[in-house]
Amino acid sequence: MILNYLEDRYPDVPLLPANASERARVRELMEVIDLYLELPARRLYPAVFSSVGTVSDEVKSTVRPLLAQGVAALEALARFASYIAGPELTLADFGAVFHLLTVSIASKAIYGENVPAAVPAVKRHRELMSRRQHLQRVRAEQAADEQRFMQRSTA
Amino acid sequence: MILNYLEDRYPDVPLLPANASERARVRELMEVIDLYLELPARRLYPAVFSSVGTVSDEVKSTVRPLLAQGVAALEALARFASYIAGPELTLADFGAVFHLLTVSIASKAIYGENVPAAVPAVKRHRELMSRRQHLQRVRAEQAADEQRFMQRSTA
Repeated sequence: MILNYLEDRYPDVPLLPANASERARVRELMEVIDLYLELPARRLYPAVFSSVGTVSDEVKSTVRPLLAQGVAALEALARFASYIAGPELTLADFGAVFHLLTVSIASKAIYGENVPAAVPAVKRHRELMSRRQHLQRVRAEQAADEQRFMQRSTA
Repeated sequence: MILNYLEDRYPDVPLLPANASERARVRELMEVIDLYLELPARRLYPAVFSSVGTVSDEVKSTVRPLLAQGVAALEALARFASYIAGPELTLADFGAVFHLLTVSIASKAIYGENVPAAVPAVKRHRELMSRRQHLQRVRAEQAADEQRFMQRSTA
């Protein structure tokens, strides 16, 4: 939603290809990351990112095969050459670098296995993206906000 | 995905507004219908659209409040004047007319209550859209295909 808005609002810095089929492939990658990986993983987050949340065994056993499917879809669609959709930086790179990290953390915590790491290029992609100055700034602001939020909610 | 592709591929027949904020509002409506209404309702479909599927009580009680939230979000965002996002026909009208129908059927079957019908404009919108010739053709082809599929799968 927000990324599509920014794409429409700032056409001078295109982060989607010009060609309709290529645009569709980038959007497909974003949907795989958002809906087939981050969305199922989110059902694990209460037990991972909160000190009081829990996750039932039914949810754990429902989510695990969904994540496997999501990783298979990611592997089929992503190019990682060097960016996730090909040689150009696109919106999908930002979805990937933020969402795959929380999916990794959550799957490691719940199943003892970093599910997205089954695709080795995911780690190389994260390192590539982490060299971007803007990303470093967003991460620093995110860490500071998280700390403030946690202090407030436990105060 | 597919609607966005068609929008990119056939720019001569725009089904998204030109203005970035208005485009975002239409996309938001589409996401509410897709992700907050159709996606949770889909977990009920095995018991509704199949003669052999079942749905657990846990799923039934998880999905019901999600549908209520989705309908509240739809009510907050939709304008229904006369089209769902305002005076112009947009991609969101097609998402609405197809998805809200299956959400209605499924919620009626499982809870004895047509959840989207809590917004009275939904029915008027469906009637408005049903007068479109293309929609009538798509529905006729869909009905024929469904029949062929059912005959094949029970043969």
